[in-house]
Amino acid sequence: MFGSMMQQPLLVSSLLTHAERHHGAQEIVSRRVEGDLHRYTYRDLAGRARRLANGIAALRVPAGGRVGTLAWNGHRHLELYYAVSGSGAVLHTLNPRLHADQLVWIANHAEDEVLFFDLTFLPLVEAAAPRLRTVRSFVAMTDRAHMPASSTLPGLLCYEELLAAQSDAFAWPSFDENTACALCYTSGTTGNPKGALYSHRSTVLHTYAIALPDALNCSARDAILPVVPMFHVNAWGLPYAACMVGAKLVLPGPFLDGRSLHELFESEGVTMSAGVPTVWQGLLAHVEAHNLRFSTMRRTVIGGSACPPAMMRAFQERHDVQVLHAWGMTEISPLGTVCALKPCHAALSADERLAVQARQGRAVFGVDLKVVDEDGRELPHDGQSAGELMVRGPWVISRYFKDEGGDPLAEGWFPTGDVATIDADGFMQITDRSKDVIKSGGEWISSIDIENIAMAHPGVAMAACIAARHPKWDERPLLVVVKKPEAEVAKAELLASFEGRIARWWMPDDVVFVDAIPLGATGKMQKNLLRERFGDHLLRGQLLAA
Amino acid sequence: MFGSMMQQPLLVSSLLTHAERHHGAQEIVSRRVEGDLHRYTYRDLAGRARRLANGIAALRVPAGGRVGTLAWNGHRHLELYYAVSGSGAVLHTLNPRLHADQLVWIANHAEDEVLFFDLTFLPLVEAAAPRLRTVRSFVAMTDRAHMPASSTLPGLLCYEELLAAQSDAFAWPSFDENTACALCYTSGTTGNPKGALYSHRSTVLHTYAIALPDALNCSARDAILPVVPMFHVNAWGLPYAACMVGAKLVLPGPFLDGRSLHELFESEGVTMSAGVPTVWQGLLAHVEAHNLRFSTMRRTVIGGSACPPAMMRAFQERHDVQVLHAWGMTEISPLGTVCALKPCHAALSADERLAVQARQGRAVFGVDLKVVDEDGRELPHDGQSAGELMVRGPWVISRYFKDEGGDPLAEGWFPTGDVATIDADGFMQITDRSKDVIKSGGEWISSIDIENIAMAHPGVAMAACIAARHPKWDERPLLVVVKKPEAEVAKAELLASFEGRIARWWMPDDVVFVDAIPLGATGKMQKNLLRERFGDHLLRGQLLAA
Repeated sequence: MFGSMMQQPLLVSSLLTHAERHHGAQEIVSRRVEGDLHRYTYRDLAGRARRLANGIAALRVPAGGRVGTLAWNGHRHLELYYAVSGSGAVLHTLNPRLHADQLVWIANHAEDEVLFFDLTFLPLVEAAAPRLRTVRSFVAMTDRAHMPASSTLPGLLCYEELLAAQSDAFAWPSFDENTACALCYTSGTTGNPKGALYSHRSTVLHTYAIALPDALNCSARDAILPVVPMFHVNAWGLPYAACMVGAKLVLPGPFLDGRSLHELFESEGVTMSAGVPTVWQGLLAHVEAHNLRFSTMRRTVIGGSACPPAMMRAFQERHDVQVLHAWGMTEISPLGTVCALKPCHAALSADERLAVQARQGRAVFGVDLKVVDEDGRELPHDGQSAGELMVRGPWVISRYFKDEGGDPLAEGWFPTGDVATIDADGFMQITDRSKDVIKSGGEWISSIDIENIAMAHPGVAMAACIAARHPKWDERPLLVVVKKPEAEVAKAELLASFEGRIARWWMPDDVVFVDAIPLGATGKMQKNLLRERFGDHLLRGQLLAA
Repeated sequence: MFGSMMQQPLLVSSLLTHAERHHGAQEIVSRRVEGDLHRYTYRDLAGRARRLANGIAALRVPAGGRVGTLAWNGHRHLELYYAVSGSGAVLHTLNPRLHADQLVWIANHAEDEVLFFDLTFLPLVEAAAPRLRTVRSFVAMTDRAHMPASSTLPGLLCYEELLAAQSDAFAWPSFDENTACALCYTSGTTGNPKGALYSHRSTVLHTYAIALPDALNCSARDAILPVVPMFHVNAWGLPYAACMVGAKLVLPGPFLDGRSLHELFESEGVTMSAGVPTVWQGLLAHVEAHNLRFSTMRRTVIGGSACPPAMMRAFQERHDVQVLHAWGMTEISPLGTVCALKPCHAALSADERLAVQARQGRAVFGVDLKVVDEDGRELPHDGQSAGELMVRGPWVISRYFKDEGGDPLAEGWFPTGDVATIDADGFMQITDRSKDVIKSGGEWISSIDIENIAMAHPGVAMAACIAARHPKWDERPLLVVVKKPEAEVAKAELLASFEGRIARWWMPDDVVFVDAIPLGATGKMQKNLLRERFGDHLLRGQLLAA
């Protein structure tokens, strides 16, 4: 027997309609590529998104057709989020930090029909265009005054002219909530990139979950500045959550240096932000060098990779900004866990609480987690048993776009490729990527724990711990370190700082100093490249010693 | 084109599974009918709910079969919430404050197969039993030691024995999320009661929405005490929200007097509560008479009927307990709006802020609202234009159970029967029930505004403003007042207190003092009975004067 409730599909357009009807006067502030600060309201956003939906129809994008974007966080990108998905097409956010060859491969695989791009990326688009097999129209996201004088792009369109030519009357269509709304590609370090094709249903459910008090805690009283790019897993869902709750939205454009961000935080009364650790490093350095403070910022979500404890301490203890450690993946929309403390942590000391906050947190409702051993058996939630992290839920993919890579699931669960523990209170901690784990004499060593200790050394700017081949133990930890400018760090002194903080057999066998550690397009350390370069380092040492 | 996301139905059982897996050690504390304070954890709840699901199967309740409850807020009732819905049957919470005749009518209409009841209600169930046509099994919600020595109920079962006979191994079935999970009847003042049949989907979506920061703001750091009964629209969804977020749950059983509630608030560290204004009146009176305070309680949700401004002021100004005014209906699961302030209210004075808080609030995402004129045309959101409030969304009914009363919708919207305004910030304020509105010379007078002013008079315990027939103006407002014990209130003095606070033509034509105003089963004033008694009061006055 069915219930007698209204049947309304969960649609991305309903987020915008809600914001327009119930938060019409709330502000959206954007630092634009053109350099100016643009301000308007949710009511304006809704009107322009409807014009854009008419424009997309005029470009003959069919239902399900992919519309690519190469753009920063700004109001025009936000209009594309709602206009493309809302009209039944698929928003495909491309990561401009990828190499042109990868971009071309991804846009061709996605079969993008139209490509919208910020002026910053004109050279990149021009370089890629001759190899883009499916793109019929290119649209520069600017006004007539800022259009390039000339371009090799065929029939290049101007965004503001596209909108100006259209009416703002457009009725958002209603359709099956399982219809695709957005497409993001993973930047896999091996093999071809693979696409995660989100649905309207998965996106709206994810939005409810991330806005909850123990997740990102989004309210109409917040001013949210997503530093995490809108081309990176939909800025972790914040452009959707802001509409759901009617929060003020502050979009920083391409200006992500510490000084620009801090100015925007202060001038716009930002209360909440989100990004990867590398961005916060720059912001903290600027704030501390100039003895500045955060007047309104009260919490920041840090994810993408583990937040170094030293950074967490700096935000919380020196700046009264609460750090919310979070974990997610492109394949899970992206949010899986947030480290919101429980009442049982209230009695802990500051250091003990910091140790809990160093974990990636607990599952938001909708996501279920487990860790399994190599035979797929579930391990206990004891905070000790490490195994591969498995996840499932309505915003987790069941397969990749075009079935690339075959069936990724194991008995209905998505294998994350992360190695983790879960404690009795449900707090998950990632100890490694399964491909980065160091197997020494059959036992696992967590590279992340070792990196965190190295990063706490005052002379260390960045540290990666990798598996180096070893004749007796198969693999042993090798520490690869970038020193801070001008800093003196002695190998013996650095290794001495590990004493008493890890088991003796976890101690890195050696330290190598390098000028830079290669980072991928989403800011993560590319340990596979380090392994290629230094994987034989210990064997070479043995040979030399022999 | 569909997205590539996992297909997982939204099921009530998933709330319990989440709480067990990720908040297993969190506490649930119940004041039982037997008088003791019972404590266990979500892990225990989950195990006992599985036993109970086996017990319900043993009682041969089929999928979709209705299981009635007559019970207070307690852990056994909570077990029924999850066991009945989780196993695919329909939880039907009966309101024990209804007259036995109404109860019999409702249970027969619902075709309840099993009836679970707290010992308090044994006499009521025994009186009703001979007329219950479909109930096959009666279960007293207690242990063997507290079972009645004898009962007229055929084959009366003992709840704890039913559980003890079963295994705690039970795999919650998966099924279509539109399957019915719970049934509540409206206590309509006219016509037969009508049933709202909720689905698993509507319940889970409603739970996400009510837990949001600007709704009831539920977190694992909260200890939630729902005073609103679990037999009254599922205690506004709090038993579901507590599982979703892993909050401590404190259930007061039948002990709803001010002293019992305050003791439980203090001993269990309750941070958040919810109920109708009449309950808070008793609590406030106790607290103020004994000069007590609230150590941990920080917010309370008040709904069911409008919260008198004087009560709001007492909670907020004297006790530092934030009042969240909310509005809902049985037909909308029940939550529609919550009065969470926006940043634009931060600069207001305390009195101005109180005036905003007196409104019923703004729509949570999922609910859409509009007010319409008598021809069904949407009125502007200007805070002035009053019209019938219409609502739609995935947790709003599309029809009543068994199609009782025909199609209730108007062009896809549910007519609430409330008269309201909506302001530019989206804040809705109910000015009347459409059947209670006073039409004087073709213009509407809000009975609620007049009642709020009367209630602020120190000598007034309760006030109702009703439409009395009038030879010239059709209807004029008549104020019906219950004085506080020992209070002296003169008619002229009371009317003088309205001067300057309402338009002159809204001034009540007369005041009648009564010993009591009749209340319905959910604590609302039964103005229809007052109209029957006093509808001709002004005509009689005219006759006497003539």
